[in-house]
Amino acid sequence: MQRVTNCILVVDQQILMLKKPRRNWYVAPGGKMEQGEHIKESVKREFKEETGLTLIDPKINGIFTFIIRDEEKVVQEWMLFTFYCENYEGKQLDFCREGELEWVSIEEAVLKPMAEGDRKIFEHAIKSDEILYGTFTYTSDYNLLAASLDPR
Amino acid sequence: MQRVTNCILVVDQQILMLKKPRRNWYVAPGGKMEQGEHIKESVKREFKEETGLTLIDPKINGIFTFIIRDEEKVVQEWMLFTFYCENYEGKQLDFCREGELEWVSIEEAVLKPMAEGDRKIFEHAIKSDEILYGTFTYTSDYNLLAASLDPR
Repeated sequence: MQRVTNCILVVDQQILMLKKPRRNWYVAPGGKMEQGEHIKESVKREFKEETGLTLIDPKINGIFTFIIRDEEKVVQEWMLFTFYCENYEGKQLDFCREGELEWVSIEEAVLKPMAEGDRKIFEHAIKSDEILYGTFTYTSDYNLLAASLDPR
Repeated sequence: MQRVTNCILVVDQQILMLKKPRRNWYVAPGGKMEQGEHIKESVKREFKEETGLTLIDPKINGIFTFIIRDEEKVVQEWMLFTFYCENYEGKQLDFCREGELEWVSIEEAVLKPMAEGDRKIFEHAIKSDEILYGTFTYTSDYNLLAASLDPR
């Protein structure tokens, strides 16, 4: 099962986002866990690889199950661990091979094109440090079919 | 990948533990996640199935990667999500098919026979509500080879 960690880094009311080339959708930087990593190691490694920045004291903010459905059939299940962080060290990369890095104001961030479930994850992270648990069900074209969230 | 959720329920300085028949090792009640569940749904379902009790407001306390090694080879990797809870409702089952349910004082709980990594998980949960991240590496006979924990 694929497991992904990412981090919403907020500094001076701006979020460091990554615009992915495929659909021009915005995401929080991150990526796939490697064998034997725990989730905090993973998010620090992935964030540094994509941005050049070392996260200082990231906190888990959301733990999610993703289901991809093709008609009635579940074709994929994976997990996402989203951290929130307000401090970093290091110098930002000029070039990220995964897409374009962009600091976006909090107000604009939640209006950017993105997967609909990701919008709920950003909205929660910005307003709460309570951990959000949830399952998102998508089509294989990434249309959100259902979201079951706790707290709602 | 197997994913397991469990919960350390502490009421009146006692922990509800499950003594498993195979090695007489003690564990926190819980079990395998089902397709499409998020981790909080999973722990509430599993805990109720094993104990009869409905957890009220369980909080995540630890997120762990487990690696099982046979000599140099990684033969299994799975994840454990451990919750901590102080409130429940419902009536405890007289019989649990997974083993024997037993309320154990906090002081005795950490001295019971159990996997060595589980002891670290119990010790942390009892003393801290900070989330513990870690990777435990075991032999296939469940001898602990290494533990990488954050915070240490």
